[in-house]
Amino acid sequence: MDLPRISRRPTRQVRVGELTLGGSAPIRIQSMTNTPTSDVDATMAQVSRLARAGCDLVRVAVPTAADAAALGEIVRQSPVPIIADVHYSAQLALAAVAAGAHKIRLNPGNLTDPRRVRQIIAACRERHVPIRVGVNEGSIVQRAQGDQRRREQATPLVDLMATKLAEYVAIFEAEHFEDLVLAAKSADAVTCIAVNRLLAQRWDYPLHLGVTHAGDVHTGAVRSAAALGALLANGIGDTLRISLTGDPLEEVLLAKELLCSLHLRPRDEAEIISCPTCGRVSVDLAALVREVRQALTGVGAGLKVAVMGCVVNGPGEAEGAHVAACAGATKATIYVDGRPVETVPNDRIAEALVERVRRYEAGLSG
Amino acid sequence: MDLPRISRRPTRQVRVGELTLGGSAPIRIQSMTNTPTSDVDATMAQVSRLARAGCDLVRVAVPTAADAAALGEIVRQSPVPIIADVHYSAQLALAAVAAGAHKIRLNPGNLTDPRRVRQIIAACRERHVPIRVGVNEGSIVQRAQGDQRRREQATPLVDLMATKLAEYVAIFEAEHFEDLVLAAKSADAVTCIAVNRLLAQRWDYPLHLGVTHAGDVHTGAVRSAAALGALLANGIGDTLRISLTGDPLEEVLLAKELLCSLHLRPRDEAEIISCPTCGRVSVDLAALVREVRQALTGVGAGLKVAVMGCVVNGPGEAEGAHVAACAGATKATIYVDGRPVETVPNDRIAEALVERVRRYEAGLSG
Repeated sequence: MDLPRISRRPTRQVRVGELTLGGSAPIRIQSMTNTPTSDVDATMAQVSRLARAGCDLVRVAVPTAADAAALGEIVRQSPVPIIADVHYSAQLALAAVAAGAHKIRLNPGNLTDPRRVRQIIAACRERHVPIRVGVNEGSIVQRAQGDQRRREQATPLVDLMATKLAEYVAIFEAEHFEDLVLAAKSADAVTCIAVNRLLAQRWDYPLHLGVTHAGDVHTGAVRSAAALGALLANGIGDTLRISLTGDPLEEVLLAKELLCSLHLRPRDEAEIISCPTCGRVSVDLAALVREVRQALTGVGAGLKVAVMGCVVNGPGEAEGAHVAACAGATKATIYVDGRPVETVPNDRIAEALVERVRRYEAGLSG
Repeated sequence: MDLPRISRRPTRQVRVGELTLGGSAPIRIQSMTNTPTSDVDATMAQVSRLARAGCDLVRVAVPTAADAAALGEIVRQSPVPIIADVHYSAQLALAAVAAGAHKIRLNPGNLTDPRRVRQIIAACRERHVPIRVGVNEGSIVQRAQGDQRRREQATPLVDLMATKLAEYVAIFEAEHFEDLVLAAKSADAVTCIAVNRLLAQRWDYPLHLGVTHAGDVHTGAVRSAAALGALLANGIGDTLRISLTGDPLEEVLLAKELLCSLHLRPRDEAEIISCPTCGRVSVDLAALVREVRQALTGVGAGLKVAVMGCVVNGPGEAEGAHVAACAGATKATIYVDGRPVETVPNDRIAEALVERVRRYEAGLSG
């Protein structure tokens, strides 16, 4: 069966350390450490954990000189490129570039002296360090609440964000520096969608997507996936962060699920599909799915494994799964390529599925 | 500030019990009980719980005559319209209509005798019961794996699904029965997006959206929100179910978050935004957000409450929140409409926010 594919918008490509971003490069997953960056050991432990989970780039906050000083060691040890998140201080931005940060995230609105911005541009140019230039709704709203209040309130928020970003981009283009990634973030999903559609029309720089302040893992996952899903499904987005209040590892896992769901990233383990529970289900399917997921960690890349709670509709609804279990009250039928191959008691389902997935991967029949 | 709005695709409207669906009606949230429908008390307990959480319509499985027999009492007691989910049996479908089900979900592919389908149509017409006609990838794949395999494998899955649905719709239209809701479901997010875009081009019947077998709450939320978010952001969708393996209450909560995030449903309590944690945060923000969310249950509809972990960027990034807390190491500043109004110790943040939200709702200043 031909599955539909999303075609991505053509963008320029930048290089972040050894990694490409934009253009034909896969959509890159980012997250951000929440350790004090100056604590190199704690930060590196988190960077490594995120990288192992599939994070392509890690951002670290650089709010103080001590954090900038730690950057060199972090960059040296990190298995993935490091982005320095700098606000307000040109001096810290310059220190981060000197320390070897692979990319800088900058909000030029925070830097009032154009000469200092030009210094940062010169340093980035020399070291081939791209800059992510961003606006977010927060800073726009804050400014609009200032003395320009009356004039700007008549302008829709999305246009205001794009206009502000255009001002920033102009600063870099005036210096012939185009090693840019653009971002426009908002806590509002619809604003995120609308403003990024606008940016995609206006520029061919790679876009960094994210919903800010999306909340904890429950609401944040939905809010982010709705906004980013809408954009990605239309080919928009070159790197993304799902930003959650909580463990950044969750950000990476959810971002991976989002990209894999949209066929924008290959899965590195089996995809599990499982039926919603209904009156026909006689096993604790949620517990069974957790058990199967655990057992299949890192196993079965490219395969679909179905865990169904009903022997009536299960087989038909296993939706072309390579390996499936349809569980009845006490025992389950195991299917391979849609054909029943064995019956096992319910407490052996996870085990049987893993065995069948391994056989499938090894090219053994049945 | 003008927030962008999603304009919805015009569709026909059907009536499900007292509820309108499609056209100008709000997008309706559905879920499905996982109790045996024949157990009226257990089913009603779940129906009530789902309805209280914001579920607009509840579907119940009707796999046996005992379930159909229980429907009458469930319909009588339910605070929301009840949809009967019937497979394979025309007799059960007729029994469900006779019992007063407000809507029937039917897959005509399961009913081989056209005379029986006409009987169901006649019964539904008489009682003004709309029918949801659906295809899902599972049944299509199953059929394509049969004797028509070679011919159909050359056709993209999405076209195959739409063609099958067109055959079904023709059965109803031949009887001049147009009280229909259409659905095309798949476990694959991209297929869901593509097939529903096609249906939206082809018909103006209301569309029921859902990703089948999306998995448990973690992966299922992302997979569903990505697909449904992409469709809803383009105005497609009149009712939806987020289908998860697990407690159906989660389906309703996530569906609400999805619609509220996209401004397609008003929030019935405060919207909480909270910053992603970073190296600047010195409190356990995830725990604080949980505490605030709990304290604000059912309070502050229409208000935005920000919970920020940093006094430096917090105030600016509170993104126009009505009430906000920016927490430092030991104490937090509380803001109302962006103005600092008090400082409280961190263990009193939730309490202070609720108090301020209540004052805000009561129209008191500060």
